[in-house]
Amino acid sequence: MLQFNIRKPDEGIIPQIQEKIDNLTKPKGSLGTLEELALQIGWIQQTTSPSLTKPVHIVFAADHGIAEEGVSPSPQEVTRQMVFNFLEGGAGVNFLARQHGFGLKVVDGGVNYDFDLTDDRIIHRKIRKATCSYLYQPAMLMDEFDQAIEVGAEVVQQSYDEGSNVICFGEMGITNTSSSAIWMNTFTGILLRDCVGAGSDHAGKILEHKYKVLRQATDNYQGDGTTADVMRHFGGYEMVMTVGGMLKAAELGMIILVDGFIMTSCILAAARINRDVLHYAIFGHQGDEAGHKTLLDFLNVKPILHLDLRLGEGTGALCAYPIIDSAVRMINEMNSFKAIEVTKYFD
Amino acid sequence: MLQFNIRKPDEGIIPQIQEKIDNLTKPKGSLGTLEELALQIGWIQQTTSPSLTKPVHIVFAADHGIAEEGVSPSPQEVTRQMVFNFLEGGAGVNFLARQHGFGLKVVDGGVNYDFDLTDDRIIHRKIRKATCSYLYQPAMLMDEFDQAIEVGAEVVQQSYDEGSNVICFGEMGITNTSSSAIWMNTFTGILLRDCVGAGSDHAGKILEHKYKVLRQATDNYQGDGTTADVMRHFGGYEMVMTVGGMLKAAELGMIILVDGFIMTSCILAAARINRDVLHYAIFGHQGDEAGHKTLLDFLNVKPILHLDLRLGEGTGALCAYPIIDSAVRMINEMNSFKAIEVTKYFD
Repeated sequence: MLQFNIRKPDEGIIPQIQEKIDNLTKPKGSLGTLEELALQIGWIQQTTSPSLTKPVHIVFAADHGIAEEGVSPSPQEVTRQMVFNFLEGGAGVNFLARQHGFGLKVVDGGVNYDFDLTDDRIIHRKIRKATCSYLYQPAMLMDEFDQAIEVGAEVVQQSYDEGSNVICFGEMGITNTSSSAIWMNTFTGILLRDCVGAGSDHAGKILEHKYKVLRQATDNYQGDGTTADVMRHFGGYEMVMTVGGMLKAAELGMIILVDGFIMTSCILAAARINRDVLHYAIFGHQGDEAGHKTLLDFLNVKPILHLDLRLGEGTGALCAYPIIDSAVRMINEMNSFKAIEVTKYFD
Repeated sequence: MLQFNIRKPDEGIIPQIQEKIDNLTKPKGSLGTLEELALQIGWIQQTTSPSLTKPVHIVFAADHGIAEEGVSPSPQEVTRQMVFNFLEGGAGVNFLARQHGFGLKVVDGGVNYDFDLTDDRIIHRKIRKATCSYLYQPAMLMDEFDQAIEVGAEVVQQSYDEGSNVICFGEMGITNTSSSAIWMNTFTGILLRDCVGAGSDHAGKILEHKYKVLRQATDNYQGDGTTADVMRHFGGYEMVMTVGGMLKAAELGMIILVDGFIMTSCILAAARINRDVLHYAIFGHQGDEAGHKTLLDFLNVKPILHLDLRLGEGTGALCAYPIIDSAVRMINEMNSFKAIEVTKYFD
C-alpha cells in the first residue's frame, strides 16, 4: 500500500493564534465554534492569518456486490443514475457546491455501468464494475485495494496542485452504509447491532435482514484482521479511494471536511492507518443514520451542524463550509482591542 | 401604538410546495432542515419558487439606565465604542454581513453619547441618552415607547422599499440581557431565576446580584400588566425598536431572522402583540445564555445552529443565513424525478 508521511502540525504556534483570537473585539470565547475552528485551521496552516483557497469537493462513485443480497431497498442502477445527475448539475451536492464556490470532481471508481470514456466530466478510474459480494469472499483483491488508495491520493494531489487547500469528500454507492457499519464495528469494537442503520431504507423495513446479512458476512470473515485487510474485504472502491484521499490530504497539510456516517467511517479507517490524519479533519454534520453519533463520540469529535440530513454525497459537510469560512474571516477581519478603543469589558 | 396588519400566509399552497420538494432527486425528507425551511419560505412568499433578495441586517443600539445598578460587569461606554466598531467594519457582525451579502444598518436608538449627527453611517433616531433605571420607575415614557415602535417599523419599511425580503435583527446595549430576562419572565410565567443568565459576565461573578436587582425591579412594578406596559417599563429602546421592526416585517411578508436570547425575547413580545408574527420567523441559533433554550422551547421552535455563540449583535442569525440560502437553492435548483431518469428509490 502507498505510504503517507503525515505529521502532527507543530503546536508551538497555538498560543499565538489563541492570543490573536482573544484580542478580537468580543468577549473571550463568545464566538464559540468559530473560535475553535479558527484555532484548528491556523494550527494546520501554521499561521495566525489562515486562508481557504479553491475548495474542492470530490465524489467517488462505485457499486457493491453485496447489493445482490438485498441489504438496500434501492436498486444498484441508482448509483449510475445519480452520477448522471451530478454531471447535469441537478443533485443535492451540485447546488451546494455552486453556492459555496467548490469545484466538483466526480470519479467513477467502480460503477456498474459503461460510461462514455470520452465524457471528460467524469474522472474515469473504474477498477471493476462493482466489488464482489463480501458475504462469502473479499470485496476486492489486494491489487485493487492498492489501486483504489492510489486513485484517491491522485485526485487529491491534483486538487492540491491546482491550488486547493481545503477538500471535501462525498460518495455515491448503493449499500455503502453496510460497508461502513462493518468497518465501524471492526475498528471500534462497538456491537454490529449498534453500527447498522436504515440507510436509504428510512422506514427500516429491511433493517433486520440487513443486520443478519452483515452479521453472517462478518462471521464468515477469515482474513488477518489488519486494517487494510478489513477495508479490502468489506469496503467499496469509493470508500477506499476516500481513505486514500484523506491520507494524502493530511500529508499535504490540507483541511479535510468530513460528511456523514460513510465519510466518518472512512476517516476512522484512515485514522487506523495514521492517527494524525484526525488533526486535519473538520466534521461538518451529524447525520440521521444510526451509528453516526456513536462513531463521532468514539472519535471524540463534535460536528458543526445537526440538520437531520441523510442524503450523503457530502451534502452535510458542504452545508458546514460557510461556518468554516466565517471562522477564517473572523480571525482575519475583526478588529483587535489594540486597533480600536473598546474597553476590554468581558474578561 | 402603531397598529400592524399581519396575516397568516394562506396554507392552500403548502401541498404544492411539499410535492415539489418530495419530487426532487433525493430520498423524501433526506435534506431535513433544508426541506423544512424551503417549505416555510415558500409558504411565506406564496410560491413554489421562493427567493431571497437584498438581505439586510439592522443593529439597534441603545443604553439602559439599569446599568447604574451594576447588573453587568461591562461599562456603559462599551455600547458607543461598539457602535464605532460597527461603523469601522471591525466587529463580529461586520465580517458576517460582508460574507453573506447583507446590507448593514446601524441605528442609534438611545446610546448615551453624542454622535456626530452629520455622520451618515448611523441612522440617527436617538430617543434619549439611555432609558431610566427600571428599578424604581418605567424605563421609558409612553410616547417614547410609541416612537421606538415607529422607528423600528420605519427602518424595516425602508429596507423593504429598497428591495429586501429578508431581514435580520441585532442589538447593542449593555445590560439588555436583564430587560430580556424580565420580559421573558413576565410574558411566559417562567420563574425569573430561570430567565436570568450571566450575559457578558460569563464567569457568573455577579449573577446573584443581577438576579436580586431584577427581582426587586419586578416586585416594584405597579403598571397595568399589559404587553405594551411591561415592554416600556423594562425594555430598552433598541429592543422596542426591534419589536416594531419585526411586526412591520411580518406585515410586509418578509422573512425575519431571529438571533439569540435578546432577539428571541423581542419576538416573544412581538408575538404577544400579534401571534402571527411567528410564521415569518426563522430562528438562527441557540445561544449560550441561560434561559434561551427554555424560551425557544416555550415558543416551540427549533433553531438552525448551535455554535455556542454568546456575542449578540445578531451574529448567530447571520451565521445561519447560508443554510436558509441553501434551502431556497435546493427547491429552485435540484432536478426532479420527472426531469431526469432516477429511480424513485427511497420511498
